[in-house]
Amino acid sequence: MEIYDYGVRAAVYHAPYDVRVETVPDAGLKDPTDALVRVSRAAICGSDLWFYRGVTKWERGMRTGHEFIGVVEAVGAEVRSVKPGDHVIAPFAFSDGTCEFCQKGLHTSCLRGGYWGGHHDGGQAEAVNVPLADGTLVPFPAELSDRLASVLPLTDVLPTGHHAAVRAAVRAGGTAVVVGDGAVGLCAVIAARRIGAERIIAIGHNPGRLELAMRFGATETLNSHDDDISDQVLEATAGGAEHVLEAVGAQASMDLAIKVARPGGSVGFVGVPAQVKKVDLRSLFGRNVTLAGGVAPARAYIPELLSDVASGKLDPSPVLNLTVPLDGVPDGYRAMDTRQAIKVMVEVS
Amino acid sequence: MEIYDYGVRAAVYHAPYDVRVETVPDAGLKDPTDALVRVSRAAICGSDLWFYRGVTKWERGMRTGHEFIGVVEAVGAEVRSVKPGDHVIAPFAFSDGTCEFCQKGLHTSCLRGGYWGGHHDGGQAEAVNVPLADGTLVPFPAELSDRLASVLPLTDVLPTGHHAAVRAAVRAGGTAVVVGDGAVGLCAVIAARRIGAERIIAIGHNPGRLELAMRFGATETLNSHDDDISDQVLEATAGGAEHVLEAVGAQASMDLAIKVARPGGSVGFVGVPAQVKKVDLRSLFGRNVTLAGGVAPARAYIPELLSDVASGKLDPSPVLNLTVPLDGVPDGYRAMDTRQAIKVMVEVS
Repeated sequence: MEIYDYGVRAAVYHAPYDVRVETVPDAGLKDPTDALVRVSRAAICGSDLWFYRGVTKWERGMRTGHEFIGVVEAVGAEVRSVKPGDHVIAPFAFSDGTCEFCQKGLHTSCLRGGYWGGHHDGGQAEAVNVPLADGTLVPFPAELSDRLASVLPLTDVLPTGHHAAVRAAVRAGGTAVVVGDGAVGLCAVIAARRIGAERIIAIGHNPGRLELAMRFGATETLNSHDDDISDQVLEATAGGAEHVLEAVGAQASMDLAIKVARPGGSVGFVGVPAQVKKVDLRSLFGRNVTLAGGVAPARAYIPELLSDVASGKLDPSPVLNLTVPLDGVPDGYRAMDTRQAIKVMVEVS
Repeated sequence: MEIYDYGVRAAVYHAPYDVRVETVPDAGLKDPTDALVRVSRAAICGSDLWFYRGVTKWERGMRTGHEFIGVVEAVGAEVRSVKPGDHVIAPFAFSDGTCEFCQKGLHTSCLRGGYWGGHHDGGQAEAVNVPLADGTLVPFPAELSDRLASVLPLTDVLPTGHHAAVRAAVRAGGTAVVVGDGAVGLCAVIAARRIGAERIIAIGHNPGRLELAMRFGATETLNSHDDDISDQVLEATAGGAEHVLEAVGAQASMDLAIKVARPGGSVGFVGVPAQVKKVDLRSLFGRNVTLAGGVAPARAYIPELLSDVASGKLDPSPVLNLTVPLDGVPDGYRAMDTRQAIKVMVEVS
């Protein structure tokens, strides 16, 4: 049943700024609940830059990539929900689908779950061993095979943008501020528009990305590099927005997000807060602003978002503005690191 | 109409650890929306210790006290909702009742509102000028006059404890952890019980107060001074509580509150976070724990809580375990400062 008799090609971390594509042992099946997925498309994520730049410490030999879609090649004896030949989306975390947290829709806290990459197979590879396949994989219609760039963001950035909107309690008719014009920020704009926010103020400093934000449904944009950016938002919203979506995870973006929240409002933060040292708790307290962030339970959101992607209502594919072959993954990391690409798609097969 | 022709007695801040009761100019009526309230009972609050100890900088001459109930002595020409002779509760903040935030139930963000004390009349006094009387005061039945100690906590600590429960999203059947055994923590226990939490774990280090927590509805208590307190809570709750009510505002209590929240849970914090320097954002992020604190909109909660106090369903009076006359206010501060009293009631008239 193992199709890659002599190993598979996969991206491997060696050192900061040194990711290589090498032949590694065949992914195969280990447990009866596993599936083996042949990857068709993978992506490189802004959060991959944390280990790429050496901010988070990784060991040589760790696999990279947590976003991939593909075709099921083989399944273990206990797998019921997918079969060989199925086109599937893998959320960036695997999960059993049955524990307390999965039942609540918080799959990223699954008691048996985990993340791709590191000591596990990474998504930037020809094939991936998927544990807990029934709980993890979401099949998608074969007819979407000619729109894989629209499907690939369902693995992470689109659900993560949606999570920012959910955590910021975005509602139809409301005013949302999105801090950040990266792939997640842009997907947060898509999500806020989808929920029906009437005003969406996108904040960033890249003109091309802000233009894309407008295409995705932002009603106005502001430049995050302006010294008086928080005053501008407060003025534009007459005292702050009820829904603030923080999609960066840096100190300045978090400070801005908290400042521009309206009394009683919510800040949904989904940028990994790796470099946020301080939170202005007094400011949150004085205005009853809720700080609600977290790792998106992508698995919970994929079905509803996929449905809108399949119908053509949503198309997040423009966030993938650079495509490389699997052997080009190192170039893809460089393009992400230098901000030449919003997000890189890896065309694997 | 001004009944205190030669001034009124009121507590006045002079310096850290120096609060005196003096004769000050008559409170009187200034605006047509004012009421003049003769104070029957006032209280000294844990948060009064911030200026008392010199942590927040106050000016000599500022009035003290933000908790009082009394009888309306006179009203301005435009006041409609109360009349002379009415027994009234003053929430710790005044508010117009009509602005965007008051309409949403967030009276502490009222666009025209403010707080007692400081440059305004303080509650630890014979009489108080109440601006925006229609929006601010809540009448209570005269027959509660013999239970004023049960009514007085409605000005602040009971609604604040309730706010912790609301912000921590306490629900019937849920498990709540209350961090802090001061007056607010004890009222948070009352509030969690009232909402119907099935398990309420009260954490503090004063045996007498923890015993009171049990009387108020806690199902178990733990000692906050134990080195392994967070492990104890995690074990008792098999991985954390969905609802954590932080009622202290110190670094250690906030750290503990965040640590013992269950993935997907909420920390409602209502202790003024004057001394919290750090928030473990990574921990909140990794587990999707919501941090939802704030100044309680007491005015919004008083009617429903008053109804339960009037019916005898709730009786928060045991948190007031020391009573002093108005001239004894300085002694009351000392008793609060040295933790001899949970909370001090001032019997004014």
